[in-house]
Parts: sequence; structure tokens; C-alpha cells
Amino acid sequence: MKVGKLLWIVDLAATVFLGLEGAMAASDGNLDVFGILVLSFATALGGGLIRDLLIGAVPPAAIQGPSYALAAFSGGAVAFLLDHLLRAVPGALLTTVDAAGLALFAVAGAAKALDREIKPFMAVLMGTITGVGGGTIRDIFLARVPAILRVDIYAVAAVAGASVMVAGVRLGLRRTWMMPAGAVVCFLLRMLAVRNHWNLPTASGH
Amino acid sequence: MKVGKLLWIVDLAATVFLGLEGAMAASDGNLDVFGILVLSFATALGGGLIRDLLIGAVPPAAIQGPSYALAAFSGGAVAFLLDHLLRAVPGALLTTVDAAGLALFAVAGAAKALDREIKPFMAVLMGTITGVGGGTIRDIFLARVPAILRVDIYAVAAVAGASVMVAGVRLGLRRTWMMPAGAVVCFLLRMLAVRNHWNLPTASGH
Amino acid sequence: MKVGKLLWIVDLAATVFLGLEGAMAASDGNLDVFGILVLSFATALGGGLIRDLLIGAVPPAAIQGPSYALAAFSGGAVAFLLDHLLRAVPGALLTTVDAAGLALFAVAGAAKALDREIKPFMAVLMGTITGVGGGTIRDIFLARVPAILRVDIYAVAAVAGASVMVAGVRLGLRRTWMMPAGAVVCFLLRMLAVRNHWNLPTASGH
Repeated sequence: MKVGKLLWIVDLAATVFLGLEGAMAASDGNLDVFGILVLSFATALGGGLIRDLLIGAVPPAAIQGPSYALAAFSGGAVAFLLDHLLRAVPGALLTTVDAAGLALFAVAGAAKALDREIKPFMAVLMGTITGVGGGTIRDIFLARVPAILRVDIYAVAAVAGASVMVAGVRLGLRRTWMMPAGAVVCFLLRMLAVRNHWNLPTASGH
Repeated sequence: MKVGKLLWIVDLAATVFLGLEGAMAASDGNLDVFGILVLSFATALGGGLIRDLLIGAVPPAAIQGPSYALAAFSGGAVAFLLDHLLRAVPGALLTTVDAAGLALFAVAGAAKALDREIKPFMAVLMGTITGVGGGTIRDIFLARVPAILRVDIYAVAAVAGASVMVAGVRLGLRRTWMMPAGAVVCFLLRMLAVRNHWNLPTASGH
Repeated sequence: MKVGKLLWIVDLAATVFLGLEGAMAASDGNLDVFGILVLSFATALGGGLIRDLLIGAVPPAAIQGPSYALAAFSGGAVAFLLDHLLRAVPGALLTTVDAAGLALFAVAGAAKALDREIKPFMAVLMGTITGVGGGTIRDIFLARVPAILRVDIYAVAAVAGASVMVAGVRLGLRRTWMMPAGAVVCFLLRMLAVRNHWNLPTASGH
């Protein structure tokens, strides 16, 4: 009960933050306030929406009640109103909070897929989509190649975190332990990649 | 009965017109006749498809029978065959018919979400997606930032119209009255925005 | 039984090849290895995913077990590891295998829609989406106007093949005959279009 409540609060907090991030990208693209709110919604909730459509959980959680949409819009509104202030926030802080959100979404997304009897390998994929889907939709809206396809160990961290969680649960370990474990792996891998400028190789011919 | 039939005819007429608009955009982008028909379909039916997937109404109305697809393709075929003629039509006329289509789709989309027990706030969102989703997909296909994110009071008119309808129904007013009322609000707001060049503000830092 | 098994193997083989094609496009776009795998998945399985969501077959076949995802990723891995080798393969060979994959997907996609009681005209559309949807998503990820909207008799071949199959089945002919017949029509039309540089007309004004 208490764990469920805590998870829900953390989930909403991550949604607010991802909404804020989406809004900042929209503002960089010189969109108006409506465009900013659309990108808040898409960035924060797009990954979960795609996952829910794919695993057959309709209407998706983000549509069933107003709380997730309001959380995403709140983040967008904050970003719109405090644009100047946010520009002064150190990039390292934004990156850290973003990595935490990625970790939470990837692990929670994989857990939801497992609940729906999705097979382990595909549950890892669903967790990854939950983590990176929103940013991908945001970039498509901004008519640019999605960042996750081009740079850094971002999606790979989501794969790793979801894999640790799913593998642990399959081995019989308790999910209440494996979810934080997976999230920590995702978070640390992402932070290490940023700090050390790790990038994935491109094809040999290029 | 008669109202239902009238609504269906109006809905098909709006689909033909939006198909025509999508085809004109495709033609501007120098697409071939197949691309034109694809954009007719996507522009006219994309918003409703996304709404139906999200609220769990599958197969979506646009897939269940051929009438909607044929309506969209008809609009596309007219635009392809009469391209020169259409270019001579005054922009103000196209804008007016488009605003009427937006109003219809936004209000009807919100009504369908309410029918599916979607909560009021989310029903307004679903109506908005119905109204603007098709144009958004069209712009993504054309590899440009969706117009609704950048210009004019377009999506906001959809939000307003859907809100009026949903709020009225929640207050116990009859839907047969609230649907036209919401549509009129959407239509007028859109037309006023065009006439007065209203635009939404962008973030303070830009 | 034997036919089903054969179809399944052919389907997986086509998935591997389309994954390979997606990876080559990703590599042209200078994406990293993760981006390459994402485009393998999207190119090979995107069309089927959209079809399954639209006809209400959830979770989609590509999500239910790991075999399709693994097939697509295998194609992507081959393309990544053997990039130089693949660049030496004659374009005509790639085009031929691609046309075979298109034919298979279009006909199988339409057949699956018919199984789900989708009406004939819409089943043809669903087959077409199955055939060309993946390449469309790939191009959107690469931030360019989808190739099927711009060039060659590609999607039209899918329409023709699916139409032949659906029409034959509606006329009471056996599906085990109509599926190969539709596939052959699609394949030949596509190959003829490539050989003869057939293109569709654009709107008269352009």
C-alpha cells in the first residue's frame, strides 16, 4: 500500500519533470504556448501511451484520468512561465533528474508489461519504449532525427535497467527489490555515459 | 434517427473536405498521386484513428467500413484532378470550411470519448486530438513541424469547443444542444483568430 | 500444417531482410548501433504493428513472442557487422528481395485483416499498410518525407497484390491459391516499375 502510493507520487513527479523538459525543447523550437503544452504531454506520456497500446492496456493509464495529463501540463506551464530561470539551472542537474526519470519509466514500463503476461525479452523492449518513446515523439514533432538514435548511451541504459529487473524477477527474486536495482543500474549507466562522453559505435563503413 | 443521419452526412462531407485539404498540401509538396491519396486519408481520418485507438474503440470507425476511406479518397481525387481550379478558390473560403470541419471533429470526438466513459478533462483532449490529429500527421509526413504547434489559435479553438460541449453535458444540459453550441464556439473563435491574426505567446526567453 | 510452417519461415526471412534494409538506411544516416537496431525493428515490423493495432489484434504478433523482434534485430546486426560487404551487393539484387518482401507482407497483411472480419476494401488498405508502413516509419525517424509518397510504383504494387488476393477470395477462390497469385502480381508490378522507371503522375499544377 505505502509502496504503491510512493511509486505513484514518484511517477507523477517524473511526469512533471519530463513535461518540463519537453516544454524546454518546444521553447527552443520557438513554439507557442499550445505547442509547448503538446510537447509536454507527448514527451512525458508518449512512451507509456505507445507501450499501453502495444500490450493492449486500453484506454492507456495516461488517458483514464486527468492526473497524468495535468502533471505533464504542469511541468510545461512551469517551463513556460519560468523560462529564464530554468535556462540558468546547471545542465548537470537537469541531466541527473532526467536520468532518474528514464530509470523509473524503463523499470516501471517493463514491470507493467510483465503484469500483462508479455514475454521477458519483449517486456524489456516495452520498458525501453516507455523510457525513450516520449523523447522520440518530441523530436519527430520538431522534425529532427530522434536524439536517442544518434547520441550517447541513453536508450542502452534503459535496456540495461529493464533487463536487470526482468531477469531478476524471472530468477525468482522479489520485484520490490528488483525494481530499485534495475533503476539504479539504468541511472548509473546513463550518468557514467554522460560523464565519460561514451558513445555507441556507428557502422564500419561510416 | 434523422439527427443521426444528418450528423453522418455532415461527418462524411467534412471528411471529403479534409481529404481535399490534405491532397492540396501533398500536391504543394510535389508528391505523386499515391502520396496525395495517402495524405488525404491521413489528414481526414488520422485524428479520429488516434482517438479511437486511445479510447479503445477498435477497429476504429474509419476502418470498419469503406465509407470514410472513400470519402477521404474522393476529396483527394478531386484535389488531384481539379488542382488548377482549386488554386483559384479564395483562401477565405477554404479557411471557413476548414474551421467548420475542425469544429465538427472536435465536438464529435469529445462526444465519442464521453460515450466510452472517458473522464471529462480527457474527453476534451480526445476531441482536440480528433480535430487536429490529422493535420499533425500530414505535417509529419511532409517532414515539417506541425502547423498547429506553431501558428494561430487553431488547436485552442478545438479545446474551447470541446470544453463547452463537455461542460454543458456534465451540467445536465442536453447533448443535442451542446454539440452545436460547442461547434459554434470553436468555429467563431477560429474565424476571429484568423481575421485578427491572433497568435499565442511564445516562452518569455524567446 | 506444412503450409503454415512454410509461411512462418518465409515471414521470418522477410523480417530479417527488411531489418537489414532498415539498418542500411540507418547507417546511411550515420546513426549509432542502437539507432540501427531501432530502425531494423521499425522497418521490419512497423507496418504489421500498425495493422494489428488498427484491426484490434493486440498485443500485435510482433510483440507476443521474441521471434519477430529477434529476426529484425538479426538483420540489423548483419547489416552493422557486414556494412562494407553489403555495400558491394548489386542494387538489383536488393531491389528484387525487397520486392519479394513487399509482396509477402501486403498479401499476408490483407489476409490477416480478412480473418478479423475487416471488409474487403479496408483489408486491401490494411495489406498496403503492412507492406509500406515500416519503410514509412523508418523515413519519419530519419526526418525525411517517406519515399513511398514520392517515388516509383511501390505502394501501388502492394495495393494491386492485396486487391487480387482479396478479390479472388471474395469470388470464392481458395486462399492458398490467391495468396501466391496476389504476391506474384505485386512482385512483378514492382519489378517492372523499377526496370522501366515508371512513376506516378503528380498534380497537374506542378
